[in-house]
Amino acid sequence: MSLNTFGHLFRVTTWGESHGPALGATVDGCPPGVPVDAAAIQHWLDRRKPGQSRFTTQRREPDEVEILSGVFEGQTTGTPIQLMIRNTDQRSRDYGDIAQAFRPGHADITYWQKYGIRDPRGGGRSSARETAARVAAGGVARAALGMLAPGVRITGYMVQMGPHAIDRDRFDRAEIETNPFWVPDAQAAAGWAVYLDDLRKSGNSVGAVVEVVAEGVPAGLGAPVYGKLDTDLAAAMMSINAVKGVEIGEGMAAAALTGTENADEIFMGGDGQPVFGSNHAGGILGGISTGQDIVVRFAVKPTSSILTPRRTITKSGAETEIVTKGRHDPCVGIRAVPVGEAMMACVLLDHLLLHRGQVGGAGGRIG
Amino acid sequence: MSLNTFGHLFRVTTWGESHGPALGATVDGCPPGVPVDAAAIQHWLDRRKPGQSRFTTQRREPDEVEILSGVFEGQTTGTPIQLMIRNTDQRSRDYGDIAQAFRPGHADITYWQKYGIRDPRGGGRSSARETAARVAAGGVARAALGMLAPGVRITGYMVQMGPHAIDRDRFDRAEIETNPFWVPDAQAAAGWAVYLDDLRKSGNSVGAVVEVVAEGVPAGLGAPVYGKLDTDLAAAMMSINAVKGVEIGEGMAAAALTGTENADEIFMGGDGQPVFGSNHAGGILGGISTGQDIVVRFAVKPTSSILTPRRTITKSGAETEIVTKGRHDPCVGIRAVPVGEAMMACVLLDHLLLHRGQVGGAGGRIG
Amino acid sequence: MSLNTFGHLFRVTTWGESHGPALGATVDGCPPGVPVDAAAIQHWLDRRKPGQSRFTTQRREPDEVEILSGVFEGQTTGTPIQLMIRNTDQRSRDYGDIAQAFRPGHADITYWQKYGIRDPRGGGRSSARETAARVAAGGVARAALGMLAPGVRITGYMVQMGPHAIDRDRFDRAEIETNPFWVPDAQAAAGWAVYLDDLRKSGNSVGAVVEVVAEGVPAGLGAPVYGKLDTDLAAAMMSINAVKGVEIGEGMAAAALTGTENADEIFMGGDGQPVFGSNHAGGILGGISTGQDIVVRFAVKPTSSILTPRRTITKSGAETEIVTKGRHDPCVGIRAVPVGEAMMACVLLDHLLLHRGQVGGAGGRIG
Amino acid sequence: MSLNTFGHLFRVTTWGESHGPALGATVDGCPPGVPVDAAAIQHWLDRRKPGQSRFTTQRREPDEVEILSGVFEGQTTGTPIQLMIRNTDQRSRDYGDIAQAFRPGHADITYWQKYGIRDPRGGGRSSARETAARVAAGGVARAALGMLAPGVRITGYMVQMGPHAIDRDRFDRAEIETNPFWVPDAQAAAGWAVYLDDLRKSGNSVGAVVEVVAEGVPAGLGAPVYGKLDTDLAAAMMSINAVKGVEIGEGMAAAALTGTENADEIFMGGDGQPVFGSNHAGGILGGISTGQDIVVRFAVKPTSSILTPRRTITKSGAETEIVTKGRHDPCVGIRAVPVGEAMMACVLLDHLLLHRGQVGGAGGRIG
Repeated sequence: MSLNTFGHLFRVTTWGESHGPALGATVDGCPPGVPVDAAAIQHWLDRRKPGQSRFTTQRREPDEVEILSGVFEGQTTGTPIQLMIRNTDQRSRDYGDIAQAFRPGHADITYWQKYGIRDPRGGGRSSARETAARVAAGGVARAALGMLAPGVRITGYMVQMGPHAIDRDRFDRAEIETNPFWVPDAQAAAGWAVYLDDLRKSGNSVGAVVEVVAEGVPAGLGAPVYGKLDTDLAAAMMSINAVKGVEIGEGMAAAALTGTENADEIFMGGDGQPVFGSNHAGGILGGISTGQDIVVRFAVKPTSSILTPRRTITKSGAETEIVTKGRHDPCVGIRAVPVGEAMMACVLLDHLLLHRGQVGGAGGRIG
Repeated sequence: MSLNTFGHLFRVTTWGESHGPALGATVDGCPPGVPVDAAAIQHWLDRRKPGQSRFTTQRREPDEVEILSGVFEGQTTGTPIQLMIRNTDQRSRDYGDIAQAFRPGHADITYWQKYGIRDPRGGGRSSARETAARVAAGGVARAALGMLAPGVRITGYMVQMGPHAIDRDRFDRAEIETNPFWVPDAQAAAGWAVYLDDLRKSGNSVGAVVEVVAEGVPAGLGAPVYGKLDTDLAAAMMSINAVKGVEIGEGMAAAALTGTENADEIFMGGDGQPVFGSNHAGGILGGISTGQDIVVRFAVKPTSSILTPRRTITKSGAETEIVTKGRHDPCVGIRAVPVGEAMMACVLLDHLLLHRGQVGGAGGRIG
Repeated sequence: MSLNTFGHLFRVTTWGESHGPALGATVDGCPPGVPVDAAAIQHWLDRRKPGQSRFTTQRREPDEVEILSGVFEGQTTGTPIQLMIRNTDQRSRDYGDIAQAFRPGHADITYWQKYGIRDPRGGGRSSARETAARVAAGGVARAALGMLAPGVRITGYMVQMGPHAIDRDRFDRAEIETNPFWVPDAQAAAGWAVYLDDLRKSGNSVGAVVEVVAEGVPAGLGAPVYGKLDTDLAAAMMSINAVKGVEIGEGMAAAALTGTENADEIFMGGDGQPVFGSNHAGGILGGISTGQDIVVRFAVKPTSSILTPRRTITKSGAETEIVTKGRHDPCVGIRAVPVGEAMMACVLLDHLLLHRGQVGGAGGRIG
Repeated sequence: MSLNTFGHLFRVTTWGESHGPALGATVDGCPPGVPVDAAAIQHWLDRRKPGQSRFTTQRREPDEVEILSGVFEGQTTGTPIQLMIRNTDQRSRDYGDIAQAFRPGHADITYWQKYGIRDPRGGGRSSARETAARVAAGGVARAALGMLAPGVRITGYMVQMGPHAIDRDRFDRAEIETNPFWVPDAQAAAGWAVYLDDLRKSGNSVGAVVEVVAEGVPAGLGAPVYGKLDTDLAAAMMSINAVKGVEIGEGMAAAALTGTENADEIFMGGDGQPVFGSNHAGGILGGISTGQDIVVRFAVKPTSSILTPRRTITKSGAETEIVTKGRHDPCVGIRAVPVGEAMMACVLLDHLLLHRGQVGGAGGRIG
């Protein structure tokens, strides 16, 4: 993790601002021979694309990815892969009002305090648009995982919007792709639609919790003690715009458990592999994957660009009120779902390569 | 963040196992001219040391730090600082019973699955003893902060033990140093003592939530978008043994807020600096410090070494029951408090140096 | 230095292949507020551009740089700068003959052995075209040096072509820009033109030695012991295509000196700064700049793409002869001059930022 | 390569000063299961140890290595290996005369200019004693190579002392271990002894060229374009104290060759592997190993600590003369031989792990 790059061996550098000519991801360290083309990456970008329902920003970006390097005749070559997305819908005039005043809860003020240079055209580098580049890179990671660890399956979904959490008893994976919230609970989806419509119309916004699960991850991934799998997942998720909390397995709730309750008991499975009686650990012990499902959750705060007037100051130090017009997401957590999936894919591939490099095939057998 | 090293410019590599000859931290990138000696570091180590109350492991380690390099006549020289702590109380026989079976909830099994080599003497590298090295490194970071940003004040404390959270209305910083739990609530301290005594006697353990606050942090620290201050804090805290969740400011609760509620309104202070009406952001916007208090919380799961029998398997694949004798912490979260403080100190110093290097004094003025 | 990225704080990742859609550099860590525009970078690219004399490849690439991010209204913002150069003259058919056989002395065979994937269109990633991206990044570094260390002046020139070295007694800096070889010796320039014409017509190629000097570099840059200024310069220069040797100051000739001869004696200058009686050290002692001129030389081997038949093998293991047609540089060392300058600029800026971050203004005074 | 750490996956951080309590190496990323013990590492340290002949410093350091972590029952565990060497012969009084004045050609002055703190006890961090830690780390790397690439054989030797080069026609590897110079030419050894005795008695010193060859290195190691095998070797060698030039294969002499001469022709060997007609490339093409011998040379400048008076200045700015008494190496290049071997071992292991991680077994076949 270093400034605009993340990953140890599979290294992704994202670049670009919301209203510049383009943005993208420079992906270094992808193994050779991975089948990748623009269409495969576009598939994932389309999931994140704005304007797909009335619940996301009405900004319309085709978000078409162009592969500029690193792929030859549909296969990665082992050299850096440059993924570029042109910005096309750059109505900067929408932002004229906020060029001088800082939006409360937004990075406007900290970028100014840090750099002394402020690009008033939208959020610049701090815009959620940056995450399109992550999703593109995640598409490459998924393709590589498909080749190297074909059993891995990554699924993201929302489990809470505002105060409304899903009912785990109604959890139905088949629902995820059928509603605009990627929520695995049909009843929640219906209720959330009403709730968010109200919020949207009132010019307000709301937070959310996203859960990302990776099934089929081999045991042994993760490198103690600062390159732990959960350490890297926490960093990856916390680096997403607006994220304020990250949990693995039981997460914050682990604090309330006793050792007796928390211990995931171990048994032998029919295939000579260990089987766990529960998964409080979220698939990670000591920073290393156990072979169980990897379970990560993160909380996304509400968008700070809202229509309700808020008190703020200008660059010249005057106190004022601000209202952020423009086309914003009432619940930016919705579009964070494919971003969380992408980060999971990148981190898993990175640790798969690290493990292969540092340990080879020398893991311990049981039995 | 890379395997056993963390930090960008202030780089800390910890090394050593719980029952080997020694453990320590190799600290690279500390500025020259910082007043440091063994006594200053020992001060922080003594806070973390086991055996200080009946609520922490009775293992008695003097944890005396020796500075082997990088300091000359009481000042850092700019070269690597080697901090070594000899292990002296290594009753390995305590662990004889667990040499073959894996403790549920413990890294025993994942280290075996990854490396195929298992040091049966305690937790080896995954032991909480590794955190002594972090605290030592944190002592160096604190000394450097004292020179470069003397207004910074870092305070850690427990806010929850098991199901029992503190009452924020009773929050009293003066209480923190007066009880064995570093809890800023005298009434909670009394109740927790009774609760933990019961648990301890029953051979059980429990989780906790620790909060670490840094006051006086200058605005502008943090580097978008993967070297964000909150990204690095999340990684730093998640890398601590047994941590399962990390929160900044509102944390997971941010999901339940609306944009109107979450926006920290901005006003002008008397000194020409911005003043915020609230701190839902936990002092960080867009990954960059705002000048408000930095607020981080993390959840520590209960120790997996407990006396209650749990089902497990052995290396040879046999199912069995395990009871972990030895001298363990009933609530390892207690000793995580100074560790969290140390990680905060390291991350803040690192970002102070990064900011100085990359941006210099060129931040933007308000007014 | 890591795979396709170099630099510690000023980090340059180059990407792209000779015959793909585009190539470029992702530049992370440039300070904010540096005046940069496409024209400023184009200035340096034009120096390196092929087809400027009969002594460089006749491939015609306009090499026009496009700035896709990180610059707003002519100033860097502190965020990643994406520099893209479209490939326009991609006559891949020229390379048809070499799609199966490996060129002796070329990376064809090693890329195949490593990756099992071979892009037969020119050198792919190993092509000297990659260095255009370095020159573009160097343009950014020069602009930043211009702001932060305006006294630094970087000059590259050839000092040897094939067996013909310049005569140091005729050294005339004013000559450098007047001949196609960037050689500071008019008589050498004349002789080399005749020599290289003969070689070129015979379809042969030849090596060269390039020297790069940086004047006005402040004392104190460089970080012991693996981030030394000379270590990073050696890596930077050795990473340029076809470079086989790197020297600092006396270089390999230092082996023949005695300690008495080699010691650069030190005196006090009129301005209270140390003055050295000689510069065998090339401006670097213990990996740290002395304030003298930094002097680096590197040897470039002859291009392996030649018209003289050479024995080789094909991918299917058949022995054969190969002749490389196409438009190649008879002395690729010529175009390495601006590349060496660019690497010097990047390394100096990087160490200036590192020094500022880690040491601040705390260097020692003399007197 | 970053400050006091080198390597990508096999990461070595050296620490310690010549006259502090101890020095050592923190080795992170060594694969598990490598047979290592203190005796194996001591073997290599003893080769480098001072005081073995009248041609090296008479300072007597037992240089006994202690393994503090990362090895359990004679095998590496995959966790950081701490190698510590206590300093025992620290006659700091020898250096009293040089506490105020700077030795010409020495890092005294640059450390002062950079850090403003100067440890007057010998060279501090810039002392050649730091290389003992490299040799210890190299011992671990050799053991790991022995397990993972048992065909690799690394041999270092001197090929030039002062103006006296060996005669390649007399090259006899069996001679290397029979003389105090590790020179593969018996006649040279005899002549050098006389030459160096004279120099030593006159209080002077002299430079040298060391060559290190690695046989049996698999094809495919090295990562374009900034993690090239030759890039990393150049950095590794240039980081050794007193090194001023590094060459791969033909090195600086490549400049004088034509393309026809330089092209190493390729044939098919009896075993279906390519065979090269020559090795001008030094075993590396495009930064990737060819399977031929890797050949690296580096020039070591003469020790700056000499008895001949040299003009210099003091910290207070006074001009003076200096004579460096104490026990110094008349030709520090001699002891650089095992250091060069160690760096070669570390770089090769690092790239073996990198290749395994990033590419796996997917290299291309010929035939």
